[in-house]
Amino acid sequence: MFEYEIIARQGRARAGVFHTPHGNLPTPVFAPVGTQAVVKTLTPAQLGELGASLVLANTYHLYLRPGDELVAEMGGLHTFMHWPRPLLTDSGGFQVFSLAQTRKVDDEGVTFKSHVDGSTHRFTPEKSIAIQENLGADIIMAFDECADPNDHTYIPKAMERTHRWAERCLAAKRRADQALFGILQGGVNPDLRAASAKFISSLLFPGIAIGGLSVGETKAETYAMLKLVNGILPEDKPRYLMGVGTPEDLIEGVRRGVDIFDCVLPTRLARHHAAFSLEGRLNLMNATFARDKRPIDETCTCYTCQTFSRAYLRHLIAAKELLAGTLLSIHNLHALIKLVNDIRVSIMDGAFENKVPDWLAQWKGNANK
Amino acid sequence: MFEYEIIARQGRARAGVFHTPHGNLPTPVFAPVGTQAVVKTLTPAQLGELGASLVLANTYHLYLRPGDELVAEMGGLHTFMHWPRPLLTDSGGFQVFSLAQTRKVDDEGVTFKSHVDGSTHRFTPEKSIAIQENLGADIIMAFDECADPNDHTYIPKAMERTHRWAERCLAAKRRADQALFGILQGGVNPDLRAASAKFISSLLFPGIAIGGLSVGETKAETYAMLKLVNGILPEDKPRYLMGVGTPEDLIEGVRRGVDIFDCVLPTRLARHHAAFSLEGRLNLMNATFARDKRPIDETCTCYTCQTFSRAYLRHLIAAKELLAGTLLSIHNLHALIKLVNDIRVSIMDGAFENKVPDWLAQWKGNANK
Repeated sequence: MFEYEIIARQGRARAGVFHTPHGNLPTPVFAPVGTQAVVKTLTPAQLGELGASLVLANTYHLYLRPGDELVAEMGGLHTFMHWPRPLLTDSGGFQVFSLAQTRKVDDEGVTFKSHVDGSTHRFTPEKSIAIQENLGADIIMAFDECADPNDHTYIPKAMERTHRWAERCLAAKRRADQALFGILQGGVNPDLRAASAKFISSLLFPGIAIGGLSVGETKAETYAMLKLVNGILPEDKPRYLMGVGTPEDLIEGVRRGVDIFDCVLPTRLARHHAAFSLEGRLNLMNATFARDKRPIDETCTCYTCQTFSRAYLRHLIAAKELLAGTLLSIHNLHALIKLVNDIRVSIMDGAFENKVPDWLAQWKGNANK
Repeated sequence: MFEYEIIARQGRARAGVFHTPHGNLPTPVFAPVGTQAVVKTLTPAQLGELGASLVLANTYHLYLRPGDELVAEMGGLHTFMHWPRPLLTDSGGFQVFSLAQTRKVDDEGVTFKSHVDGSTHRFTPEKSIAIQENLGADIIMAFDECADPNDHTYIPKAMERTHRWAERCLAAKRRADQALFGILQGGVNPDLRAASAKFISSLLFPGIAIGGLSVGETKAETYAMLKLVNGILPEDKPRYLMGVGTPEDLIEGVRRGVDIFDCVLPTRLARHHAAFSLEGRLNLMNATFARDKRPIDETCTCYTCQTFSRAYLRHLIAAKELLAGTLLSIHNLHALIKLVNDIRVSIMDGAFENKVPDWLAQWKGNANK
């Protein structure tokens, strides 16, 4: 269990299989985000049809609502949300730092107020693991502190704290059917990133996440840090780049040795009427689509593109029909899942590096987050 | 085409098949409402899975947005919304009288202001038919005037006007691939109802709708009027009770000779967190369901009941996740479609009348609109 098998490589890019209690996870993989135990607007049947293999759920949100103990009582997250394939939960740390109303961090943990009702709560590494054990995902994450990438004074302090918390998470973990991933930090400082990669690699984690990227630094800095840490991380463990990303980010991430990605972007764009396409990102609210009989993307095989015109999608949006969000979510998720699947096949065929320039050109108009 | 074949009878109840350009429609049938060319929150794939055979769309809404000419240009309503089975459009009359901001009716037609943007429009019988020919449903409706059932002075006037408009609709109709149904009115006055049933029956309509019921009169009045008019209407044409209804209404309607029903109730209840069940109508927002592992209805075979607990549905509602509306719509529509299918089978088996008391008892807690 939790063995990571690399079946093909090209340069730094890897195609592999991660073995989990809910089946084999082919990598590279893009995970849709199901923050509140649901990928917004989609049934698990629809998610399955579009080929999703790994879904992420948020510990912070589920702890607050409906509560991790309730989820455990209902049989765990897989049963509760009816997702039969692998699940991943984050540690809650990122949301405490980004969503909670107020927060106070000390070496023991973080005290914060709920964004839902203002009630006071405290997360520690041990508490985060206990919650994630109640939720029961296949992959769980160490509790870390993600600092502002431009706060160069604070970054070393947050990194040190993240290292101590990583050790405490490992010590607190009880369940054998969950893989606990360590998270490295270090901002955009090469020395700190290298130190963090080495330290987290030295602990007994079956997988390692690269935290604190895509949070405000430049693309050049992201890519430099990815290259640096993936030169240090062990080859035989999956590498997870948290909260990323755009089609371009996925291509550039795999190229630098990343295996697992997750991002709210496809479903968030869908709620804002935007769709990935080879013509660049389309906003389907635009009146130019009112009489457009074409699908979002004529080359796309998703249910939405095989079934509906841009004119119909535009009508649903203009008429404030919620089905628009469902149909755009299907398309956007399909686009990223298919891109990552195509990347995987190309790594196995030895064609990946040759295809990168074309892919980057094709997806150029979809680059911004 | 548009032949109505009765294959079994029990008392006044009939099981039949109505032949349309988009396939045979078994009756009795319950039609989900797709006001704006979408049954709210559901894909046509989901609608198909739950066994829907006829969908209603609203002429008033589609005329205003996206416009009937646009729908025609996109290939008609079947193509636009990707519904391959029979479609029905109403005449727009009911919405003009219930939704439009201001309206002025005369013998020629109705002038009204759009509820969307306040712009001024005019519907006449000829205009309603022209719009419905652009939309292209299999069954289209005559333009009528639905009066307040308690306004006994105005009812005869509205009925007379409805009769003149029925003749004008027949004269205006051009397309041979659409069945135009007449609508009878007459409030809750037996003499007027009988006169209207006779007059509308005398015109060359392939089907007849019973309008102006379930709009504020008592249940006893509704049933009395149904019994009366169905004793007059020709046996060889389908009878459509517009805007009805609850499980009880369907049972009582079939019992009095009705073949076709439509109602927004299942999808509207879903948006208000309510579900049909044999325990009576459930409001799944209720905290008593927070840890309830049972499905909405343990005897139900819909996707929602086969997949999710009440606890999960309650969580989705509390967390304001839109998927709750989708899942409750699936369940509520499935419940009514299955009830009507069961009724059909029981008419063919000669068991309908024996089953009525049990069905009425089972569905009792779901009676109110």
